[in-house]
Amino acid sequence: MEQSTPLLSPAPQSPPPLGEHLRSPQLRAAMLVQQEALYSAREFLRGEGFTELLPPLVGPVTDPGGRGAKALDVDYYGHPYKLMTSAILYKQASLHGFPKLFYIAPNVRVEPEETASTGRHLVEFHQIDVEIAGASREDAQDVAAGMLTHIVEHVWTALPEVLAELGREELDFAELRTGKFDSCSHEEAVTRLVNGGHPQSPDAEIDWTGERILSLEADRPFFVNDYPKGSRGFYDREDPQNPGVLRNFDLLAHGGYGELVSGSEREADYATIVTRMRESGENPAKYAWYLDLAREGIPASAGFGMGLQRLVRFLTGLDSLWQVSAYPKLPGVVAP
Amino acid sequence: MEQSTPLLSPAPQSPPPLGEHLRSPQLRAAMLVQQEALYSAREFLRGEGFTELLPPLVGPVTDPGGRGAKALDVDYYGHPYKLMTSAILYKQASLHGFPKLFYIAPNVRVEPEETASTGRHLVEFHQIDVEIAGASREDAQDVAAGMLTHIVEHVWTALPEVLAELGREELDFAELRTGKFDSCSHEEAVTRLVNGGHPQSPDAEIDWTGERILSLEADRPFFVNDYPKGSRGFYDREDPQNPGVLRNFDLLAHGGYGELVSGSEREADYATIVTRMRESGENPAKYAWYLDLAREGIPASAGFGMGLQRLVRFLTGLDSLWQVSAYPKLPGVVAP
Repeated sequence: MEQSTPLLSPAPQSPPPLGEHLRSPQLRAAMLVQQEALYSAREFLRGEGFTELLPPLVGPVTDPGGRGAKALDVDYYGHPYKLMTSAILYKQASLHGFPKLFYIAPNVRVEPEETASTGRHLVEFHQIDVEIAGASREDAQDVAAGMLTHIVEHVWTALPEVLAELGREELDFAELRTGKFDSCSHEEAVTRLVNGGHPQSPDAEIDWTGERILSLEADRPFFVNDYPKGSRGFYDREDPQNPGVLRNFDLLAHGGYGELVSGSEREADYATIVTRMRESGENPAKYAWYLDLAREGIPASAGFGMGLQRLVRFLTGLDSLWQVSAYPKLPGVVAP
Repeated sequence: MEQSTPLLSPAPQSPPPLGEHLRSPQLRAAMLVQQEALYSAREFLRGEGFTELLPPLVGPVTDPGGRGAKALDVDYYGHPYKLMTSAILYKQASLHGFPKLFYIAPNVRVEPEETASTGRHLVEFHQIDVEIAGASREDAQDVAAGMLTHIVEHVWTALPEVLAELGREELDFAELRTGKFDSCSHEEAVTRLVNGGHPQSPDAEIDWTGERILSLEADRPFFVNDYPKGSRGFYDREDPQNPGVLRNFDLLAHGGYGELVSGSEREADYATIVTRMRESGENPAKYAWYLDLAREGIPASAGFGMGLQRLVRFLTGLDSLWQVSAYPKLPGVVAP
């Protein structure tokens, strides 16, 4: 207990020099939590019949992403390649051989420099990236909720004194551990924010402030469903019953921690994928390998990515993502 | 048993189209073996008190490597960065906070195109990357041998029918499973090769053909110790009793599978590191963050990297590394 003070001091905006950061008791605690979170995520997914694959790091094309994040370019034997911003295209490509698969995928996103102070953005981060052939959005949400509940149970069982030292209380997770998750639509979330005085656009992602407001109001994690078409990638399936709305979701943590998971049903129809690429300003010619597979037939699926560092921040209750990364890279900040 | 024929057909030099590769029963078998190999590697290392960290993907500098492999360059917010060819510098940097640590580290090495046909090179691969503060070469070898023995035991227990279907026999691992590992010096290995008619240089790495010859002659894995100074990176510690010789090792598998592990005691003395950088043609100014830490004092250590895909190839008995990677990238070959 006498060590709790240094672990709980408020987080500065940016990390100390690397050596000091690596020696801090707080990082040690966060890395133990991360190790147990990954252990229990794998335990849960293996138990559900998933196979873990290792994602590629570079390729001719990657997830075009959103919110202004860019991919890093490399010259690959004379060809323009990119570092993966997400492994979504490879998850879909792999479904024929591996109908239930996951990665612990490292991603690199060159985020706008103004995101350095959100506490929620790192250029290098990891996702627990899950995809399920033949699944609906609700199936994917069940896996995400089940995995999160299992991880919280395991981490509290394996490391109770570490979490207590970080100031976390079992009560913070009481609702979650009963398996209760709320849900609302994007439209309902927007209405709630606008009525509360926050100017959230109905045609876009919930902005950082809006996410924080919703997250602070909640006492258990909750799904936000049905994002508008323009706000997400071409691979999120449009609802045939409700054009302009996607069969997708985010899972937001309570307590102000915001988004932990993004997921959706995927578009699997070749012609529709090409149309959606064009609508979102992507050049289909760049996606040749993926479209070749889609023309042969990619299984329908649903899946999600759970941000690992965001998960560890939520578990530990720390303020900023740099506190839960051994080698944190804040947007725009040059660091080893 | 009726499925054994397609799994055992001889490997072509390069993989089929990605969709076909991902649907092959052989890849499915290899990925199950990989999953169990990683499970048991983590089980072993956690049991020995190691903490798993996640390595960075890009940085101002990386392992200069050897044998003609290059790093990929990226523009990181206007600064020249590289993709990691190995995580060695970060392993050393982390020892103060994490005296026994490991990564499952993704690496990218732009290998010369002529290595595409060795069956033993992929541009993207992974290492089980271990570092131990205060350890000697012999300590590191004990961990490597113990981990390999544990992995083989676990994989044969968890997936006997998968290995049998791939044509592997328990006898192939009988000597290994008794925990017996041979060892020789680099000088002895060179003498053996030269006496056998293979023109191996005494001042260089054992070449691919030489490694294969030694590996085929053996019936259990064996360590090769004491590589000459010019053949390895500046971070391998020079033997104070034997100048010009490094306190390092490789672990070669028997049966023709060759190198599985490279390791060494590390140089921890600031002035010696700078001297070794200059001797090997590296500009110390590029390594500012690492040298700043070394000047403050990096713990003495030893460690190693075990090539994950090489390990899975050895376990499965497959011919080529592309057969044990879901998204294989052969040197010089443009692939998703």
